[in-house]
Amino acid sequence: VSAAQEHRAEEEADELKALLGPGREEELKTFLQLLHPADVADLIREVDEHTSLAILRHLNPARAGVLLSELEPAEAEQILSLTRPHEIASIVSEMESDDVADLLQELPEQVAQDVLQQLPKEEREDVTELLQYDPETAGGIMQTELVSVAEGSTMQQALDAVRAKADDVDVLSLFVVDDKGRYLGNVALQDLVFAKPQKKVEEVMKPKIVDVRTDMDQEEVARLFDKYSLVEAGVVDRVGRLRGRITADDVHEVLVEEADEDMMAIAGAGAPEDVYSGRVWKIAQVRLPWLFATFLGGLVATWILNAAAVVFGTLVVLLTFVPVITGMSGNVGSQSAMIMIRGLAGGQIQEDDVRKNIGRDFLVGLIIALTCAILVTAIVSLWHGGLFLGLCVGTALGLSMLIANILGSVQPVVLRRLGVDPAIAAGPLITSLNDITGVAIYAAVAGMFLSYLR
Amino acid sequence: VSAAQEHRAEEEADELKALLGPGREEELKTFLQLLHPADVADLIREVDEHTSLAILRHLNPARAGVLLSELEPAEAEQILSLTRPHEIASIVSEMESDDVADLLQELPEQVAQDVLQQLPKEEREDVTELLQYDPETAGGIMQTELVSVAEGSTMQQALDAVRAKADDVDVLSLFVVDDKGRYLGNVALQDLVFAKPQKKVEEVMKPKIVDVRTDMDQEEVARLFDKYSLVEAGVVDRVGRLRGRITADDVHEVLVEEADEDMMAIAGAGAPEDVYSGRVWKIAQVRLPWLFATFLGGLVATWILNAAAVVFGTLVVLLTFVPVITGMSGNVGSQSAMIMIRGLAGGQIQEDDVRKNIGRDFLVGLIIALTCAILVTAIVSLWHGGLFLGLCVGTALGLSMLIANILGSVQPVVLRRLGVDPAIAAGPLITSLNDITGVAIYAAVAGMFLSYLR
Repeated sequence: VSAAQEHRAEEEADELKALLGPGREEELKTFLQLLHPADVADLIREVDEHTSLAILRHLNPARAGVLLSELEPAEAEQILSLTRPHEIASIVSEMESDDVADLLQELPEQVAQDVLQQLPKEEREDVTELLQYDPETAGGIMQTELVSVAEGSTMQQALDAVRAKADDVDVLSLFVVDDKGRYLGNVALQDLVFAKPQKKVEEVMKPKIVDVRTDMDQEEVARLFDKYSLVEAGVVDRVGRLRGRITADDVHEVLVEEADEDMMAIAGAGAPEDVYSGRVWKIAQVRLPWLFATFLGGLVATWILNAAAVVFGTLVVLLTFVPVITGMSGNVGSQSAMIMIRGLAGGQIQEDDVRKNIGRDFLVGLIIALTCAILVTAIVSLWHGGLFLGLCVGTALGLSMLIANILGSVQPVVLRRLGVDPAIAAGPLITSLNDITGVAIYAAVAGMFLSYLR
Repeated sequence: VSAAQEHRAEEEADELKALLGPGREEELKTFLQLLHPADVADLIREVDEHTSLAILRHLNPARAGVLLSELEPAEAEQILSLTRPHEIASIVSEMESDDVADLLQELPEQVAQDVLQQLPKEEREDVTELLQYDPETAGGIMQTELVSVAEGSTMQQALDAVRAKADDVDVLSLFVVDDKGRYLGNVALQDLVFAKPQKKVEEVMKPKIVDVRTDMDQEEVARLFDKYSLVEAGVVDRVGRLRGRITADDVHEVLVEEADEDMMAIAGAGAPEDVYSGRVWKIAQVRLPWLFATFLGGLVATWILNAAAVVFGTLVVLLTFVPVITGMSGNVGSQSAMIMIRGLAGGQIQEDDVRKNIGRDFLVGLIIALTCAILVTAIVSLWHGGLFLGLCVGTALGLSMLIANILGSVQPVVLRRLGVDPAIAAGPLITSLNDITGVAIYAAVAGMFLSYLR
């Protein structure tokens, strides 16, 4: 299936290029009309900005609006940099308010202001409100387009309200508010259709399941959508008044974005928008700082080994085991860190269970460290023909793994408390700090063993 | 907000425990009735199996069904192991077909068969069909509950069809099929409400945007939902007949599950269901194999260094730089691997762009490796007071990073072609292979430099 779809995309791109020549305007228009705007967005990524603009101008404003929503805001900005504010405004007024807010944040300040001024009053106010919220909160991902009626309305009035907005809003359900505008619950569209017209909305309404406030973190919103299998949720302000709604596809974007961010943090690879920008120097620039951190960590470890080498004396063989120590401590630490990170993010580990989980992880680490220590003691003793060296490396490894395991489960919790993304606990910064700890423990244990020998 | 919610959950758990005593049955029932089944699921995780079963029996079958869907299939299996098949069947017949199929896969073969036999015929057939699909494909995540009408039907007939199923199905839109049952498109519920009753459904219908086949990988399904901002999609068989539908909340689960799996693969921490099982021995058991892999890798690296130590002779200081070499090569490799892994998963890197991206990543790696090599040469030269040692370590580091960078971007692509999850390219198995490569390159380069010296 996937191969066939790719083939289709290639064919479409070829066809488009052929149609871009002079005198084939009408054919181009028909061709673009048949494609989904998201597919046009794929094609636009293959051509230069002027061609993109030509394509955009061949679409009617509604479809152009969907197209712009599909592009990354930074990509849309590149194309729009060639157009005038009034032209942008005519497209933008067809977009959903949350997409408009995302886009305006990418445009140069002055252009964004000009575009805003050209928008109809109501939409301008909505977008201005959305622009005030942190993009990573419920307020930042919600849209203001929704259908609401006041408590006490009849189902007939509710139907009329949906009808009035049916062209502008993708209605999933009807929102019910009280006389002060506070969010009470929803009426499913299917219930709206079949209820008696004179019934009151509150008789049919399902009370709201969750309170999503405009300042709720988008990850928490995603967790609630997952927990309660939501397709839509209303967003309220401090006093409970309905300000907008979040739909499942917004949450989708959040999940993908957060997973991308976490993974990039873990690899120390820089922000996704830079890494996939295609600009070689820029990519090198965002990746290098993490490598410098790793380098500094490695340098300290080297310094410790250098100092220990004097103690080790003729037992140079001790130095050759360093890759085993750093590799295994690093691995066991990132296991614990990842289990804690994903558990906290996904709700498998609740906030009030954190201590119990750290305790349990300590037990797991103890089993693991003991197993590995015994194994390594045996192998090294057999290999180098002496229990002493084996015990020395094995003990050092076991201790260093145990500490790495504890650090791994504790660090994400501490980072979270400090308001930092716990995912960086599995990233290069913390990993190289842990490398230093591992090497230091190794050097100390080896030194102690050697002092008994003398 | 989050703190308040946790507080509420704690209060609820306390209240529940108080109500579990004798003679408070009615109060318990009322209490459970007021909670969302997903919240009851949270409470159930805090109590033992017998109490869970008592709670389950106090819910009506419909709510018990939602509750079971909210639990992980393995958790539900634990509770159900105490009940009889006919009791399970009465609950299960209220669940959506996809949740039933997931649950039955967890139950012992014989119990699952017994439960199936007790289900109404139509539902039994639906579930039996779903059980045939690979759980990680569109067929494995779709549900059979949907409302469809044939092409040529009037809007009035369509409305009647929705009404007939309104109690059993959460309708998001109406599915339209041709006379052979092939999927054509959807009518939005809001359009259904306001169209003239005598209109034909095909006049109002929006043609389907994508072809989701039952055997499509669930990750590809998630990508399509993201690309086209879908809330619902029909799933078809080989010849295009409508077999079921996937809704946004199913895709949510996929996204969370895939991100969990990827992250656990990267940390080499074992499958999420084992890691959060709370069973200490089990967790140690799934984490240890990855550590053994790391250990073997480290052992080979140690062996190489051991052999090289003879060549290095008195320049023992060369061995102390091993943490820098393995740390930085490892980091640069996992950066490249993660960029490729996430790019392939999220569609930022298209299949036909893979070569271009590997080429670009090579250029980035070249800039990074050169920068680090120069930096390290300078620092080591100054530290140890000699350009020779600096050049030796710097050259070895640059080469080893360059190779690690190439391996990092190529390995995920190769793994994908082999049908293996590319995420393991950032995991401990591949990382320790790369450690060996790095140490080998280091030893070889150092050996060459030393041979010039003599």
